[in-house]
Amino acid sequence: MNATDKNLQQNFLNATAQVDPGATQPFTNSRKIYIEGSRPDIRVPFREISLSDTPSAFGAEKNPPVIVYDTSGPYTDPDVQIDIRNGLPALRAGWIAERGDTEQLDGPTSSYGLERLHDPKLADMRFNLHRKPLRAKAGRNVTQMHYARQGIITPEMEFIAIRENQRREGMSELLQTQHAGQHFGASIPEIITPEFVRDEVARGRAIIPANINHPEIEPMIIGRNFLVKINANIGNSAVSSSIGEEVEKMVWGTRWGGDTVMDLSTGKNIHETREWIIRNSPVPIGTVPIYQALEKVNGKAEDLTWEIFRDTLIEQAEQGVDYFTIHAGVRLQYIPMTARRMTGIVSRGGSIMAKWCLAHHKESFLYEHFEEICDIMKAYDVSFSLGDGLRPGSIYDANDEAQFAELRTLGELTRIAWKHDVQTMIEGPGHVPMHMIKENMDLQLEHCGEAPFYTLGPLTTDIAPGYDHITSGIGAAMIGWYGCAMLCYVTPKEHLGLPDKEDVRVGIVTYKIAAHAADLAKGHPGAQIRDNALSKARFEFRWEDQFNLGLDPEKAKEFHDETLPQEGAKQAHFCSMCGPHFCSMKITQDVREYANKLGVDEQAALSKGMQEKAIEFVKRGSEVYQKV
Amino acid sequence: MNATDKNLQQNFLNATAQVDPGATQPFTNSRKIYIEGSRPDIRVPFREISLSDTPSAFGAEKNPPVIVYDTSGPYTDPDVQIDIRNGLPALRAGWIAERGDTEQLDGPTSSYGLERLHDPKLADMRFNLHRKPLRAKAGRNVTQMHYARQGIITPEMEFIAIRENQRREGMSELLQTQHAGQHFGASIPEIITPEFVRDEVARGRAIIPANINHPEIEPMIIGRNFLVKINANIGNSAVSSSIGEEVEKMVWGTRWGGDTVMDLSTGKNIHETREWIIRNSPVPIGTVPIYQALEKVNGKAEDLTWEIFRDTLIEQAEQGVDYFTIHAGVRLQYIPMTARRMTGIVSRGGSIMAKWCLAHHKESFLYEHFEEICDIMKAYDVSFSLGDGLRPGSIYDANDEAQFAELRTLGELTRIAWKHDVQTMIEGPGHVPMHMIKENMDLQLEHCGEAPFYTLGPLTTDIAPGYDHITSGIGAAMIGWYGCAMLCYVTPKEHLGLPDKEDVRVGIVTYKIAAHAADLAKGHPGAQIRDNALSKARFEFRWEDQFNLGLDPEKAKEFHDETLPQEGAKQAHFCSMCGPHFCSMKITQDVREYANKLGVDEQAALSKGMQEKAIEFVKRGSEVYQKV
Repeated sequence: MNATDKNLQQNFLNATAQVDPGATQPFTNSRKIYIEGSRPDIRVPFREISLSDTPSAFGAEKNPPVIVYDTSGPYTDPDVQIDIRNGLPALRAGWIAERGDTEQLDGPTSSYGLERLHDPKLADMRFNLHRKPLRAKAGRNVTQMHYARQGIITPEMEFIAIRENQRREGMSELLQTQHAGQHFGASIPEIITPEFVRDEVARGRAIIPANINHPEIEPMIIGRNFLVKINANIGNSAVSSSIGEEVEKMVWGTRWGGDTVMDLSTGKNIHETREWIIRNSPVPIGTVPIYQALEKVNGKAEDLTWEIFRDTLIEQAEQGVDYFTIHAGVRLQYIPMTARRMTGIVSRGGSIMAKWCLAHHKESFLYEHFEEICDIMKAYDVSFSLGDGLRPGSIYDANDEAQFAELRTLGELTRIAWKHDVQTMIEGPGHVPMHMIKENMDLQLEHCGEAPFYTLGPLTTDIAPGYDHITSGIGAAMIGWYGCAMLCYVTPKEHLGLPDKEDVRVGIVTYKIAAHAADLAKGHPGAQIRDNALSKARFEFRWEDQFNLGLDPEKAKEFHDETLPQEGAKQAHFCSMCGPHFCSMKITQDVREYANKLGVDEQAALSKGMQEKAIEFVKRGSEVYQKV
Repeated sequence: MNATDKNLQQNFLNATAQVDPGATQPFTNSRKIYIEGSRPDIRVPFREISLSDTPSAFGAEKNPPVIVYDTSGPYTDPDVQIDIRNGLPALRAGWIAERGDTEQLDGPTSSYGLERLHDPKLADMRFNLHRKPLRAKAGRNVTQMHYARQGIITPEMEFIAIRENQRREGMSELLQTQHAGQHFGASIPEIITPEFVRDEVARGRAIIPANINHPEIEPMIIGRNFLVKINANIGNSAVSSSIGEEVEKMVWGTRWGGDTVMDLSTGKNIHETREWIIRNSPVPIGTVPIYQALEKVNGKAEDLTWEIFRDTLIEQAEQGVDYFTIHAGVRLQYIPMTARRMTGIVSRGGSIMAKWCLAHHKESFLYEHFEEICDIMKAYDVSFSLGDGLRPGSIYDANDEAQFAELRTLGELTRIAWKHDVQTMIEGPGHVPMHMIKENMDLQLEHCGEAPFYTLGPLTTDIAPGYDHITSGIGAAMIGWYGCAMLCYVTPKEHLGLPDKEDVRVGIVTYKIAAHAADLAKGHPGAQIRDNALSKARFEFRWEDQFNLGLDPEKAKEFHDETLPQEGAKQAHFCSMCGPHFCSMKITQDVREYANKLGVDEQAALSKGMQEKAIEFVKRGSEVYQKV
């Protein structure tokens, strides 16, 4: 290593011991709270948003705080001092240890992991991990699915049950009121119990990505009967980015609501980058191991071997990757089906495997060695994310034979994974026009036995480069409603370039919208509380509450202040749309006062929307009103 | 008028004689073309996007230009010199005159129009219109619906037929290939003929907003069997904006694809602002006349009278407003139904009328005088946009009794309007979770006899202020698919402030996405051409073509160049996602070469995606490949 390189690396370490305060400061009027489970080491984090009182003009009442799901980990807890050189606290370490089914290794067992560990040139770049990797004891299976099938409720499952319920029992009846959903055959209970979590994991309908070597995560679940989740991608590439930027992006991504983060790095030092990310990540980390395997053979797909791939899986499993995208469904026989496509094979993993298969005229080594892969997965509890290597890359190619042939194979592989009690989800498209989205969801449920579906978008049109977070957000909301469990975000830079922090924020917020719109449409219990609380704040001109209850309080405040920057305007009972002289919200107050003059019976009938009665009331109200 | 005011106005006129070149310069590689109809004065504008040749690596072929619908009017035609002080050419003037059913008035016949015309203080601000307003001769009806019902195909109808087809017959079979849609009972023909346009207008299933006093427009149509349209709102308000800004916003809005523009001004000088906008607008202009009527009574809703409202309708009809939002469905008896809502009455027009009804304990004067309103509409061919004054302002209030009671009344009013041959569309919500959107569309079709639906969003969740273009873009795409004819855009500033130019651009592009995604899902003939052309360009690494075929070429290029600014990168056969060493698109080329080695029969079977055959091919292909 030359002096300049060393200097750069030292700068990196000094600069990033603390994460950018802009990525970690709590949102205005929000604080981190923890709800304790059945034992003191189950402490489930939430964000509590304090609200102001309803102004007297609207009936002066206290508004209790609203609790929301919080993916940001300890970063937004001012009581926790974080130094990313040390990583996050290993909150699951005790849970993993007490199960007594793991053994501590002397160090990495992969060739590549050992090589990197003993390379003196990497000393300054390496994360200073004192902990040794864990692996299942011989003959043991350490997956959450395995425990679930034994009837064991793990602390992870209890943690998740508390997390999913979002303590909504404390909210008023008004805020808890919501529309009946349309769930297309989902089975969402009123209250998520630890036993329900266990049962869903046991039957394969949900997964808990939680590698035993990633004890830092706050457990979360992916399944159609839980809140819809989103994934944010980060990753350097051959042309740009540094380790420090990627760690920052991960923290930034969880701030805005990323439930999991995929590290898709393809450039230099990806082993070291990954270590830094995992050690500092409160959310599960996914990867596509074939990317790194390809780096190891200098980008020549035909030089890939099962042995190199296997070593990569072990290398990454021992670092703590929680789920692997594996394109084992790209079978030799499906490849010619893509020849007549408009955009061929657009999945990187899919095209790597296609190239390998064609070069060797052989069946994919991922498919052939699938049971051996399962053996690795269950030794660390890495979940499968079975990749859709033949997903369509254009509207033209949507729902074609190549895509669905692969999907059927993913179903076959799911059943093999389940035989090994390996947690499995299925990746999905891609580019699909709206009316062809539901077929994707229905076929996935059918072929893959309700294993969670995890889709990229889908993009509902190809004509808006620069806005593909929106073309895909539309499809994401719809497929979430139809039953998709996790939505992989798309940023405005999709197809054009690498996202910067602002793109990541916009992509995540767009996908939080899609996921939440899906929860509302499915009728997920409690989903409407935040909408109700925000609408109530909006109606009562509680501007600050309206900002703070939103997915991006900072943006909302900034937009408001562009038109009405004065501090007083945030107490104003009007807004820039109508101005101070006329306000439609104010008129509704008149309607309410009018209705309040009616008797109790009339009010009850009114609330049921009885039209005939309403006519009577108007007459009677008129008399009341005239008397007043 | 004091010196400062006068100075300001003079500045305005000097400054805006020409529109900002950024809003009018043609997009890169695009040019304005006109297709002539059956007579030389029917010249239908399109944007023609030139494409580069397919690089030799991908099979070197010519790519014919792609024609797209163009709303930007003469502004993007370098052959037309525009001075906004003179307004646009009156391209429909001859068509209107030759029908012989209108008379030229001596001047405005409304009291307010006369008052403004004769106010010397306004001289410098007034648009210098030399033309006199037109009105139907006594006893005549000048609506496009009236002509249609007489069996007359107007030049406007022929213009529209040419415009809707987008000359797609010139495109290759590949580009014309598209998925069968799901249209939910729409009746979209393969080719739009003038006779089809006439028939749709005659039966009320489509409208052509085209006031005889707005001869400057390029005719367009709104109906479920045509391309889905979008509306962009502009308008100053009590707290900000100037005339010049509003004209600029209108031009800007049509540049990005606004099919109609609503002028929602509520501030000073709205009469004069409107005149400037209409004279310079190539697209239909809509207004909400009750806003101006309210200004005339100093914001006191209870002081409104039928006479003031009537005078306002005539004032605006004689200026050339193409459609009026009229909230005649807010009946007295429905008002109490809103008392228990989370957010009451959020429509400004709805709340004005509610306040009037409550103050007077009387039925709405709009409802009571509806036939008289029809008489005004048909004298100028102003179309109704029957306002949804009781639309829900929150997810909580979606699809409630107040909303649907009003919708039934809008159906009743539609039948009255049709009795007078007055063109009518119906406005819709608002805030509606995804699973409750279709009910809105279905009930609208049922109650309003398939009159075109024109919806605001709907917003599918309330929790993302600052991103409501996206929360609503999701709902807009869905309702467009279900049959909605026009989508009213929402900008990122919705609920927070007034949109600036960048917000208008983002709002419009978002809604163009929604409208186009809907066209694709409905299977609108030719809708997929642009997707196919862009996907082909993407696959072939024709970067510039990819940008230029997109809805926002400037943004796409800007995003690409942020990561790879070098000019050479736009000729590169890789992108920033994978980098130069590995490229999934490249691998597909290998697959194609492989498939090309197969015989003709095999290729034919392949394109049908026959799996068993594919296996054989792989075996055979393997031999071929090895031989080569």
